[in-house]
Amino acid sequence: MGRGNLSPERILRLEAGALVVLDQRRLPDEEVELRCESAAEVAEAIRALAVRGAPAIGIAAAYGYALAAKRGEDLEEAYDLLASARPTAVNLVWALEQMRDDPSPERALALHEEEVARCHRMASYAAALFGPGVRALTHCNAGGLATGGYGSAVGALRTAWEEGLLAHVWVDETRPLLQGARLTAWELEAAGIPHTVIADAAAAHLMSRGEVDCVVTGADRIAANGDAANKIGTYGLAVAAAHHGIPLYVVAPTSTLDADTASGADIPIEERSGAELTSRFRARNPAFDVTPAALITAIVTEEGVHRAPFLESLPRTVRAG
Amino acid sequence: MGRGNLSPERILRLEAGALVVLDQRRLPDEEVELRCESAAEVAEAIRALAVRGAPAIGIAAAYGYALAAKRGEDLEEAYDLLASARPTAVNLVWALEQMRDDPSPERALALHEEEVARCHRMASYAAALFGPGVRALTHCNAGGLATGGYGSAVGALRTAWEEGLLAHVWVDETRPLLQGARLTAWELEAAGIPHTVIADAAAAHLMSRGEVDCVVTGADRIAANGDAANKIGTYGLAVAAAHHGIPLYVVAPTSTLDADTASGADIPIEERSGAELTSRFRARNPAFDVTPAALITAIVTEEGVHRAPFLESLPRTVRAG
Repeated sequence: MGRGNLSPERILRLEAGALVVLDQRRLPDEEVELRCESAAEVAEAIRALAVRGAPAIGIAAAYGYALAAKRGEDLEEAYDLLASARPTAVNLVWALEQMRDDPSPERALALHEEEVARCHRMASYAAALFGPGVRALTHCNAGGLATGGYGSAVGALRTAWEEGLLAHVWVDETRPLLQGARLTAWELEAAGIPHTVIADAAAAHLMSRGEVDCVVTGADRIAANGDAANKIGTYGLAVAAAHHGIPLYVVAPTSTLDADTASGADIPIEERSGAELTSRFRARNPAFDVTPAALITAIVTEEGVHRAPFLESLPRTVRAG
Repeated sequence: MGRGNLSPERILRLEAGALVVLDQRRLPDEEVELRCESAAEVAEAIRALAVRGAPAIGIAAAYGYALAAKRGEDLEEAYDLLASARPTAVNLVWALEQMRDDPSPERALALHEEEVARCHRMASYAAALFGPGVRALTHCNAGGLATGGYGSAVGALRTAWEEGLLAHVWVDETRPLLQGARLTAWELEAAGIPHTVIADAAAAHLMSRGEVDCVVTGADRIAANGDAANKIGTYGLAVAAAHHGIPLYVVAPTSTLDADTASGADIPIEERSGAELTSRFRARNPAFDVTPAALITAIVTEEGVHRAPFLESLPRTVRAG
């Protein structure tokens, strides 16, 4: 794959009766594609993190549902399999609800294209928040890989870079699965954006030294009150950013909003195997945490920049279900 | 090595004209001893982290200096080599100053024994701060391996466990070198203390869920005003602990106190190779950070429990130099 050539269809596409995904577990060392030929195989690819990121798993579920329809699978079963592949993001259910009336490949592709278009719009809104020469810090991967193309938080960084506003990106490595050090650094390299990987635990130190101007992350689910679930570690970053008076921008499409969940306390947090951390000792491995709305400077969606009180400012998404 | 049998001489000892150290880079997978036959080899073992932890590297330097004296090496050269092996801890210089007048193996052994005795005393003081059923969180390894025996922060946990006050220990894995997941978990396992390894970025999440009652760490250098340099990530923990009203106890021997350094701003922070984080992308790897005194509930030394204002409450250590 050429540098910068991370097209939406390279990340996820239907081809010859299968969903083909770029296996994110193997990046950046190897660029391997994984073929999923049934809803069950798509659900497994989501569960095993071959495809990850809240918007991207929603798109994968839509393609998986279309695949199931084409193959004549039991669609209720396919829905349940795909919807339950991971618990924290709301995008799985959102995308499947969009597919109910028209479970066609064309509908899934349209959802995919809409999601990427949303990224471009929210990136423009977010970049407008940046002053010149910004040194931004990001966590995990809210890039093209996570959204099916362009990226939410990384999309904002790309647009800011193109507009000459971005000086540098600090990339949290994001333990245990290193989505920052593997995926975000790879995407920033391809986009030619200056970046430096740091240990997650070094972020507060860099803030204390005045080397971070803003924190920009994606989100896996945003509750009605603005509380945002995102990759484990986001909450600690938010606390540290607030302590230093550094703004935290959450950049996420409206497909991530969950008006039916009142607050972060109601968002289920996926606990993954401790073996992702250590095979030698007992470990606990929550995959997400919740950042309370009070610590978020602004939530940026494709509809604009939303500020507290989020219960009023967040767009009301129409849920098909 | 038997479980629990982490004796001071197993960690560091002079034997047949060499300093023999348990190579901490290989733990917990392999228990390999490394022989250092000159001051230069001891300095290299310190630099390369075969022996690490502020008090332990001080002891190693003392043994290395005794070795140099016995071999007839140039003692000024040996002093400079050992003193400059790592920049952040003050224990290297402290221990070498103690050796100047009497560079004998017996003097080095006495320093080692004194350091371990200090650990036992400070552990008693620290454990007295714990209420019953405490769930403590610790970072990096401030255990027997780091102090030459028993441990500072881990010593406090051991004493609290023996006194029936400790319910559980959360062990930050401590990227990039995983001293928590490799060394602290190994020591706690040997001591039979219930513990769970977590990603560094998960600590704030557990605090927000009410699962952490106190944070207990060691220190690599404590300035006159109480600002404490410790493993990168300690500062972020301190900010998160303060945000949640959770006490932070720094447990460290007086050999770590540096009355000549006014504040944390004057403590040099070691920047290690980015290759410890990633070999694929550019990385920045500060090994320590500074926690301002204002975020520290108490500093515990072998002389007692010290609280703000630390400029008045910290013991005045008599520096030999």
